[in-house]
Formats: sequence, C-alpha cells, structure tokens
Amino acid sequence: MSTSIQDVIIITTGGTIEKTYDEFDGSLQNRGTSIKNRILTKMRLPYTNISVSPLMSKDSLFMDDVDRESIASCIQDHMSHNCPIVVLHGTDTMSLTAEHCYKTLPAPKVAVVFTGAMIPMGFDDSDAAQNVTEALLAAKLLAPGFYISFHNQVFALPNVRKNKEKGTFESY
Amino acid sequence: MSTSIQDVIIITTGGTIEKTYDEFDGSLQNRGTSIKNRILTKMRLPYTNISVSPLMSKDSLFMDDVDRESIASCIQDHMSHNCPIVVLHGTDTMSLTAEHCYKTLPAPKVAVVFTGAMIPMGFDDSDAAQNVTEALLAAKLLAPGFYISFHNQVFALPNVRKNKEKGTFESY
Amino acid sequence: MSTSIQDVIIITTGGTIEKTYDEFDGSLQNRGTSIKNRILTKMRLPYTNISVSPLMSKDSLFMDDVDRESIASCIQDHMSHNCPIVVLHGTDTMSLTAEHCYKTLPAPKVAVVFTGAMIPMGFDDSDAAQNVTEALLAAKLLAPGFYISFHNQVFALPNVRKNKEKGTFESY
Amino acid sequence: MSTSIQDVIIITTGGTIEKTYDEFDGSLQNRGTSIKNRILTKMRLPYTNISVSPLMSKDSLFMDDVDRESIASCIQDHMSHNCPIVVLHGTDTMSLTAEHCYKTLPAPKVAVVFTGAMIPMGFDDSDAAQNVTEALLAAKLLAPGFYISFHNQVFALPNVRKNKEKGTFESY
Repeated sequence: MSTSIQDVIIITTGGTIEKTYDEFDGSLQNRGTSIKNRILTKMRLPYTNISVSPLMSKDSLFMDDVDRESIASCIQDHMSHNCPIVVLHGTDTMSLTAEHCYKTLPAPKVAVVFTGAMIPMGFDDSDAAQNVTEALLAAKLLAPGFYISFHNQVFALPNVRKNKEKGTFESY
Repeated sequence: MSTSIQDVIIITTGGTIEKTYDEFDGSLQNRGTSIKNRILTKMRLPYTNISVSPLMSKDSLFMDDVDRESIASCIQDHMSHNCPIVVLHGTDTMSLTAEHCYKTLPAPKVAVVFTGAMIPMGFDDSDAAQNVTEALLAAKLLAPGFYISFHNQVFALPNVRKNKEKGTFESY
Repeated sequence: MSTSIQDVIIITTGGTIEKTYDEFDGSLQNRGTSIKNRILTKMRLPYTNISVSPLMSKDSLFMDDVDRESIASCIQDHMSHNCPIVVLHGTDTMSLTAEHCYKTLPAPKVAVVFTGAMIPMGFDDSDAAQNVTEALLAAKLLAPGFYISFHNQVFALPNVRKNKEKGTFESY
Repeated sequence: MSTSIQDVIIITTGGTIEKTYDEFDGSLQNRGTSIKNRILTKMRLPYTNISVSPLMSKDSLFMDDVDRESIASCIQDHMSHNCPIVVLHGTDTMSLTAEHCYKTLPAPKVAVVFTGAMIPMGFDDSDAAQNVTEALLAAKLLAPGFYISFHNQVFALPNVRKNKEKGTFESY
C-alpha cells in the first residue's frame, strides 16, 4: 500500500477473453494476445509495472494435461521474481488448471490470480476489462495462494467451479 | 471469498467523477448521482448487492467542515449494517475528508474506501469505471479501516495526498 | 430538406453487421436483428421515423436465388409507401443481391440503399454504426435507384463489387 | 459515385463539438481541434482524403462579425481546390455564420456543409461522430451551395435556425 512501483506479471493462455475477430475470414478465434492494446493502455496504472508473458493461445476446451503442466511450470518460473501473477485463461477449464497448479505448487510465494471473460475484450458488453482490472488489484492485495477472480468476486482454490447457467464462477 | 451475496454501500458526495454535461446550457456540474446508469449497470456483479446512498452533490473544492462532518456521520450510520462502504468524492479534498473520518471514527467495523476520478464518468478516457471497479473489490478484500483506492493502488489512511502534477494519489 | 418527419424503412437480412455473440455457446451467428438496440437508439433522429422490417437472418454466403427473389419482392412491396429504403445485408454477396434487384425492379420509385459491415455491430472497431448512419442519409438524399453505400462512399448499381483484399466496395 | 479518391476539406472553428476536458483544472473549453484523433481515425474512409484546416477555436456565442468574415474568407480560399467543404462550428450561432457565407459568397462552386454537436466529441452520448459522418457524406452528395447538416437531416440555407428546446436545427 505504498507508492513505490509494483511489478505484476500477466501470463496469457488464450480463452474467450483473448478471442479476436478476423474481418477477412469472419472467424472469432484465439490468435495471440491483445491485452496491451485493448485493455492495459486504456487503464491508469501509475504504480504498476506490467510484464505480459504470452504462453499459449488456446480455447481452454482444447487444453490437455500437457498444457496445464506447461502453465504450472510457467507460473513456477515467474514466482522467482517475487511479484504477483495474473493468468488469463478460458473459463471452461479455468478451475481445472487452477486446481492443477494449486496441487502441484504447494507453497506459492506470491498471489496467483486466474481470470478470463464470458465475452471477448473489444465487444460492447464484454466483462474482460472489469475482470482484468479486478484481477490486477486482487493479485496485489491477496496473500500468497491460488485464486480465481471473476465478476468482482474472489474465490480461493480449491473447490471453485464455473456455473455455466449463470455464466460466472462459484465455490462449492 | 464465498459465493453468498455481499452487501456493499456506495455513498455519493459529488466530485469530478459525478459531474454531468447539460447540453442545453453547456455546463459541466454536479447534479445528483448517475453511477447506477453510467457504471453499475455495465458491470457484472452476481454476488454483490449494492445500495447507493446519495448524500450530497458537491465539487469537493467547495466542501467545508460541516460537509466533512456530515460525511463522517453518514459513514458511521451505515457502519451498523456491517458491510463494506465505498465513498465517491472529489479528488481535490478527498484526503482531507478521509483523514477527518479516520480521526473521528477511530474503530471502524468495516472497510471504508474513498475513490473518485480525474475525468467524469461517461467521457471516453474517464478513469471512473476503473476506480469504482477497484474500490468495490478493495472494500470487500481489505480489513476494517479507512482507505483511498485510485488507479489500481490502495492507500491506507493517514498520510495520503493528491499529487496534482501526476493526477493521482500518493502516500507520504 | 425540410423539417417534416421523413419515414425510412430498414429491411434486415442478416450478414456480418447483424451477427451476435452468444456467451453460453461461444458462437458468433445471425440470430434476428438488434439494430434498434445497438445502433438506432444511440443516434439522434428527430426528423426520421424508422420502421425496421426483419426479413431473414442469414450469412450472405448461404443466400440463394430464392432468398434474392424474396428480398427483391420485399423491396417492391415497401416501395408502395413511397419512402426511402435501407437494406442490411452481408457483404460477400451484397452486390449480387443489389444487382438482382436492379435488374428485376427496373423503375424504382425510391432510393434503395444496401449496406452492411466488415465487423459486427457491438464490436469496438465495427464499421456498422458508420455505415448505417451514412445509408440512412444517402437514402434520403439520393434520387430513386439502387445503391450500395459503404465507408462514406456511394456506388450506383450496376457494376459494383466487394474488394476482399481491401475490405470495402468498389465500382468497375 | 466512383471509386477514385475524393478530397474533402474540414475547417474547424471550435464550438461544443470540439470542447475538451482538462483534468488538471477541471475546465471544459475549446483549445484546438481533436477531430483527427477522436473521430476521423475511428472511421473507415478508403476513398476520402481529408485535410483538416484549423481556423479558430471559439465557443460560437463569442464569435463576432470579424470571425464570421474570417470564416467566409477561409471558405472562399478553399473553394479554389474544387472539393467539398465541411465546417465544424458551435451550434448557437451556426445559422448566423452559414447565412453570412450564403449571402457573401453567392455562387459557390462546391457544397459547403456546416455541422457541430450538442455534446462534445469523446462523451458517451455525443452526437459529434454521427454529425461528422453525415456531413462528410452530404458534402460529397449535394450540389454546390450552403447547408447545415445535423442529426441525419440536411437544411439548405437560407432560413435555417437552431431550435434550442429540441436541441437540433429546423428550417422556417
């Protein structure tokens, strides 16, 4: 809560939040990250130094165990920097990946906050900017551990899941 | 961090964040609150039950000791509900009001988070939605106490001030 | 150019301009029209009385001769009202449909202006609002005939085509 | 109506449409033009080559006869380029200036279209982008002469005035 600069790492893995529309073929797909242009440059972050680390660009329905291990490994590498981590991830298997990280990295040194969106960034009614804004703040304020932050609510792992009917997350 | 509904109270006092443009006389002024229409209805808040409590509608440069006491008194009344409180306030004297509340309400039972904006809600480059989003989450996550939340940074009272050159807040 | 109220008819047929995102299945598809909520309610039209006539809701790549005849027939019916007509249509076969109407309705009594978009309405960088705004004005200003209006340019039929590389239309 | 590039000149004179908010002093004033960044870069104009010519930056309530003569003179100079002209102007005295030009420049070689806005560009509910989009197209489509284009309606001079109660223009 001081006014020194705080480093934060954002690991991007794809998901609805990062899907973009290609006007030439009409497809809506994951193709790299656009969080800098679409969200971060529109925020005011005078005390936050963000490094974006693009790891993969996948619809989370198509992620497998190798992908989840790759994400856990990437988080572990970045933990050595001792700064909070935000992970952008598809909502459909976000809780699976977060739970995998929670189990395989038992003593995290920093807060690791997963988030995503129901509607891609850059759409009128998107929840992406809200979720990213909240995840960045949550990552700074929370104790070390694994969390999902979504729709102004923070859930500590384990026992978090997507509620598909409501289009949000819940603990159980 | 559960999935039960969380009550939050927003006390509005005016400030740049709430200034609106009147197209018939061309003035940009405080005239009541529009946080519901301009910000809250555009957010996804499935677990947050917000009560907006409009107290006054003033440019904070024109607030005096009576106004600050009125704000402190309003906060004290709402504390009985045992839920987090967000206060929308002009930036020019926000730290004065927050410090006044910090001194006159020494044992707050809830987190009280002041925020505002450099540019009014409803303008293209406004920081209002970002600041409100962050203040709502901060109010839920923080321990009881008085805070200013601004630009993805949380400052615990006392010893917080506006930095006019940078257009943000800082601790000292 | 007077200040009496001007009736305008908008016939919607689908196309990219009208595709919407379903956050529950992640699909981007034509499913009815949302031009009222997404565009018309955000415009100021004190002298324009718009009737939206939803005819079909198809990606224009999947339109066939029956669809084109149905559109021509719908235009013919509406011509009896003696007011300008705007047709929302997918870009891929817009010039085919417009040319079909141009040939089968040789003596139009009103201006019939086709338009669409490269990016669906409701996306950050969408050209939908611009194209609709222009088509409405063009329909009022132009002499009876068939036109495609796109990206602040009006093309009189025949001999208009989409330029796929440039993502716009051109005459030839 | 071809696909060759069309030159258009935009003369800016100030007015509500060009007022900008200064977050450091809280003022909403005319200070230069921002039409390129705020409107033109967000439009698709593949066939339009726009030159922005900033003439003055005044609330039109404070314009006097010298200003109106200066605007007429600037229009006359640009007419030699033989391309359509759009003039951004405050709404309060727009019809006075347009009428002055209509009278002092009796045989215009091009269409000269005045427009402005009730709410400055860059505000959520601004009519600026709509009015500029329409004025650009109207300037291309209309016969030589002086016009006010506002809210999807074109008024040929003379006998046009602002209707302050309705917040738009009308002929009389």
